[in-house]
Amino acid sequence: MRYSLFGESHGPAIGIVLQGVPAGLDIDLDFIASEMARRAPGGSPLSTARTEKDAVRILSGVFEGRACGTPLCGVIENTDTRSRDYAATRWLARPGHADFAANMRYKGFEDYRGGGHFSGRLTAPLVFAGSIAKLALRRMGIEILAHIRSIAGIYDAPLDLASPNPGQLRSASHTAFPVIDELRGEAMRQAILDARSDGDSVGGSIECLALGLKAGLGSPDFDENVESIIARHIFAIPAVKALEFGAGTTFASMRGSQANDPFVPSDNTPVTSTNHNGGINGGITNGMPIAFTVTIKPTASIALEQDTIDMQSGKAARLAISGRHDPCIVPRAVPVIEAAAAIALSELPGVLA
Amino acid sequence: MRYSLFGESHGPAIGIVLQGVPAGLDIDLDFIASEMARRAPGGSPLSTARTEKDAVRILSGVFEGRACGTPLCGVIENTDTRSRDYAATRWLARPGHADFAANMRYKGFEDYRGGGHFSGRLTAPLVFAGSIAKLALRRMGIEILAHIRSIAGIYDAPLDLASPNPGQLRSASHTAFPVIDELRGEAMRQAILDARSDGDSVGGSIECLALGLKAGLGSPDFDENVESIIARHIFAIPAVKALEFGAGTTFASMRGSQANDPFVPSDNTPVTSTNHNGGINGGITNGMPIAFTVTIKPTASIALEQDTIDMQSGKAARLAISGRHDPCIVPRAVPVIEAAAAIALSELPGVLA
Amino acid sequence: MRYSLFGESHGPAIGIVLQGVPAGLDIDLDFIASEMARRAPGGSPLSTARTEKDAVRILSGVFEGRACGTPLCGVIENTDTRSRDYAATRWLARPGHADFAANMRYKGFEDYRGGGHFSGRLTAPLVFAGSIAKLALRRMGIEILAHIRSIAGIYDAPLDLASPNPGQLRSASHTAFPVIDELRGEAMRQAILDARSDGDSVGGSIECLALGLKAGLGSPDFDENVESIIARHIFAIPAVKALEFGAGTTFASMRGSQANDPFVPSDNTPVTSTNHNGGINGGITNGMPIAFTVTIKPTASIALEQDTIDMQSGKAARLAISGRHDPCIVPRAVPVIEAAAAIALSELPGVLA
Amino acid sequence: MRYSLFGESHGPAIGIVLQGVPAGLDIDLDFIASEMARRAPGGSPLSTARTEKDAVRILSGVFEGRACGTPLCGVIENTDTRSRDYAATRWLARPGHADFAANMRYKGFEDYRGGGHFSGRLTAPLVFAGSIAKLALRRMGIEILAHIRSIAGIYDAPLDLASPNPGQLRSASHTAFPVIDELRGEAMRQAILDARSDGDSVGGSIECLALGLKAGLGSPDFDENVESIIARHIFAIPAVKALEFGAGTTFASMRGSQANDPFVPSDNTPVTSTNHNGGINGGITNGMPIAFTVTIKPTASIALEQDTIDMQSGKAARLAISGRHDPCIVPRAVPVIEAAAAIALSELPGVLA
Repeated sequence: MRYSLFGESHGPAIGIVLQGVPAGLDIDLDFIASEMARRAPGGSPLSTARTEKDAVRILSGVFEGRACGTPLCGVIENTDTRSRDYAATRWLARPGHADFAANMRYKGFEDYRGGGHFSGRLTAPLVFAGSIAKLALRRMGIEILAHIRSIAGIYDAPLDLASPNPGQLRSASHTAFPVIDELRGEAMRQAILDARSDGDSVGGSIECLALGLKAGLGSPDFDENVESIIARHIFAIPAVKALEFGAGTTFASMRGSQANDPFVPSDNTPVTSTNHNGGINGGITNGMPIAFTVTIKPTASIALEQDTIDMQSGKAARLAISGRHDPCIVPRAVPVIEAAAAIALSELPGVLA
Repeated sequence: MRYSLFGESHGPAIGIVLQGVPAGLDIDLDFIASEMARRAPGGSPLSTARTEKDAVRILSGVFEGRACGTPLCGVIENTDTRSRDYAATRWLARPGHADFAANMRYKGFEDYRGGGHFSGRLTAPLVFAGSIAKLALRRMGIEILAHIRSIAGIYDAPLDLASPNPGQLRSASHTAFPVIDELRGEAMRQAILDARSDGDSVGGSIECLALGLKAGLGSPDFDENVESIIARHIFAIPAVKALEFGAGTTFASMRGSQANDPFVPSDNTPVTSTNHNGGINGGITNGMPIAFTVTIKPTASIALEQDTIDMQSGKAARLAISGRHDPCIVPRAVPVIEAAAAIALSELPGVLA
Repeated sequence: MRYSLFGESHGPAIGIVLQGVPAGLDIDLDFIASEMARRAPGGSPLSTARTEKDAVRILSGVFEGRACGTPLCGVIENTDTRSRDYAATRWLARPGHADFAANMRYKGFEDYRGGGHFSGRLTAPLVFAGSIAKLALRRMGIEILAHIRSIAGIYDAPLDLASPNPGQLRSASHTAFPVIDELRGEAMRQAILDARSDGDSVGGSIECLALGLKAGLGSPDFDENVESIIARHIFAIPAVKALEFGAGTTFASMRGSQANDPFVPSDNTPVTSTNHNGGINGGITNGMPIAFTVTIKPTASIALEQDTIDMQSGKAARLAISGRHDPCIVPRAVPVIEAAAAIALSELPGVLA
Repeated sequence: MRYSLFGESHGPAIGIVLQGVPAGLDIDLDFIASEMARRAPGGSPLSTARTEKDAVRILSGVFEGRACGTPLCGVIENTDTRSRDYAATRWLARPGHADFAANMRYKGFEDYRGGGHFSGRLTAPLVFAGSIAKLALRRMGIEILAHIRSIAGIYDAPLDLASPNPGQLRSASHTAFPVIDELRGEAMRQAILDARSDGDSVGGSIECLALGLKAGLGSPDFDENVESIIARHIFAIPAVKALEFGAGTTFASMRGSQANDPFVPSDNTPVTSTNHNGGINGGITNGMPIAFTVTIKPTASIALEQDTIDMQSGKAARLAISGRHDPCIVPRAVPVIEAAAAIALSELPGVLA
């Protein structure tokens, strides 16, 4: 599979074209809607007050309820857009946002309203595409599950990467705030509300597993390396700033005798008793769960006044962002990370066939 | 630029083909040799006793000392190979290595000797290609500099990502153990020797900067996103398990008011007073130094006996790896990370032209 | 530029996503409409009676009348569709069409109505994308012009490939039947009407020029070879079965002394006195007009009864195709060939920058 | 499979890296040598007097006689090179060659000796790679066979594209002058000798078949379209100027009732009674033989004096090319076309797996 994402936050519509959907795949619209709902902004004080209608209209690639094998295009109309919010601050580069970089890249012709193509809203079609990738992976016995690993320094219960409990993650994923340990979730929510009341925002991290991939997929070459492919897709998601496989950054202070995953005999293919390597060695799956953690930076849009510049005059300015913004996007980013993982793994030769 | 890497540790030769080298580029053989020397194993107790001759023979793409614009192939003959070391343990999957994953991927036909194509030795042609990419970038005023950020939990002096001191890093890079703070370097070396005397190994991290890139390079699309492109190349390097841009994983516990980089007026393009975002917003350069940190896992080959399986019988086995191995590959990985960064940035449209 | 085409003839909509449109490009809607009109079916007895409304709705990538640099999506709704025409003959493989090949490729899940994704209707979004590519090329002084070279064995006036007359081609392109010599055009039209009255169809060829490309674009490598890039796009157009550059197939009976294009001094870069090579040597432009000819096979849909098989039973069957079909698609294919050429050349590094 | 070709005619060596060779493939060195011999210049008056030793040294990707799955690099050293031949005429653009285009592309830094990277000699590693692709295709029951279709306007016996005789083609391919009809071959040879004695050269065409591909491979999308993929590779071969599938250019004067291939029932998948479409509909194989014809222009290097320019001064000059050159490269190009076809088809998803 390969996707092509399009749209600006305040343009006519946003959408995605997905190539390589297996012909005959049952396009389960209920499942797709449930995935979209996981990402959609709700009425919760934890998320933006915007009520986007993320109804996807499928323009192509589906016939009589099944993928017909040709490119699948899904489109979401932009309806609740308030462009007037943005004109006044058009030339003020919002710190932490891509405004300035985009202004240099597109020479001032970018659609600046609401972040344009850089808006988090563009993750809606990504979740749509991811839900189709998940349907295709499910047919092969592969499941993608993620949870909030941390918010504002508060950590969810740790996962056992060598033998995770999928039921636990599945239950968590059906909630608006996907954590395993509800008590820690409550503390995270409090930290978000605290930031919100300060006119500020908080960051966090998401842990994602892919279960059911057989050993021997991928390659050391950067075009087929499982870690490279996942990384390429994950870093294209706005606000992602770090990616760790398995034990990730903690490898830096480990010894080899701790870090190496010992092999143990098993009925089918051998397994490892630990899974520090996150299911991947040399860019190739080893049959253990694929496990990675993504760091999401704090929402860049905050109510607190910040130093910035006017991009036209180059002069110093002050900016307080007044719009409707999530004080923490981590909960809503969970299905987005899953979607990117699903698309990335669908791209791996041998996974869907 | 785009490369194609080939070779097995104990095959006839290893090498690389590099496409897109700008015609007319002065192929400075002394610079290339100095880069190769930074990665080469030395006689130090900190690294392997193997004395590879990493002399690169350039087969094509260079004419009268300059790149002629057509694909450049560099080859390194394999001479000091002791294949007999490996036959006895052919079917024992070395924990932490790609042996088992490769065995599944290549159905038992892989060249298992010394890790074959997965050997760290394959990073030699990568450094060769990187040195050519560096020469091309240097013409555009771009410099890539890295240092050891940590080994075994001991950290080098921190860098100021918003206004780093290139001279400091350049000096460090000329040493066999590239750290800024020699005292901390000494502590790291002691940690390596301790691990070595225990028959064990240690991991660490490398911090890399790219200086001189103008704002506006890259794109949010995963094919041109600066973070995606760097990630794709970095994760194809053996032993890399995490990648962080700017503040990286620490974003997870930050607030937006800390994390956002305030813009300040400047003579030329505006700058930011902090550089938590590592020079990249929305996949596009913002003109600040590109900064990322890579986690390198501990050397998988250790002398301590480990649990494993025999891949033919599937039965449990014990394995102690006796060969010549670095107890810590982090120092030698520094030029490798720089090389991958140089190649990745050379691939970005607009950088070399 | 790179495009992603989607849609089925009788699905909700067809469209295209175009990446790499230069930011700031004036999206001249009148020009786009005039290009679309050139391909659209008219009321002429020479073309189908279908009255498609090819109004393109631009969903993204355009802001305040200019390309904003992010992916541009254009969508055409399908309105005049008569799906009932197709159900009765669903399993009869139409000779000369992709029905059988698609049935094998997509395992029976393809949208068979009106040829689905294989319909000539999919060339409408291609012309849309081509018109944008033409606008971008025009800024660089590059023009794409094509005419009908032959229909049913009747040839238009030959072009002088070394110094063609652009005005002549521009005038022809504004007509519904783009030929240079009106008398020969009249003979072609008669041949089409004759075929039509026989319930049959005719093929032909199209000659296309690209003027204004500087010398030194492209590469011998298949990924950047000008002939390879053009070929890749041209052969993706339905009904194209041959592609010739410059003197094309006549090279086979030429001698070197005739075939070689002698260089002659010129005020700017040197030129050649003939242009048998069609402006390309070794995959690289030489500054002369790029010239190629495309063979279009006769419309596969004919009213005459044909032998075929039922794809379900595998048994022999007879089929007469009753719908509304062009007895010759060559006139309407002229802007399609131009569009593919424009897109192909926009993909060449160095053309738009 | 994907290849990366490198080398200049008078540089140290030429070669190729081939990715995606199936692990376990028996690398039959005798077969490879026999393929190389088909392309090698002989002592015949029909070809160049150069006696290149095209011995390929395999540097990687083969272990114990079989492909080990990682990139396979083959290198041919350049030994019989007479660089002194070229220096005197360094700045004279040889008509019909890429000298001028390359000079513009590579800004004068190109290796001009013997055509550098543009030399026909670069087809040697291509034949090497093609022979490996053929071995991989052979395991899947696929065979590639070509013959000289015409030289100097003299045609070999026509093939029946719907039911060709593979034995006939196999026999022809074992000869130095692969034609089916020896009498016509004799006439071709005479035409070559005539051209040679005139200091001139002749062109021709090659017809190539691929037998044994199942129906349903490929896609309408230009990245997977069978015609697009073949075209991309074929046009990257020096001297190729036209490509026709099936009936090719003759479609232009056919009617639909002649051109359409009627389906007829068959024991296995249905077949067509004619094969004007050359085994491909809508970019997808239909199970019939793939058939295409390639036009090869006359050798550009001729002894006759030609008009040209001096690329440094821009002034008119005269040039007679004195070196050793084939008066017709068509016979030696037959295995090259087969090689490109084999590589192209190996790239198609589903062919090798």
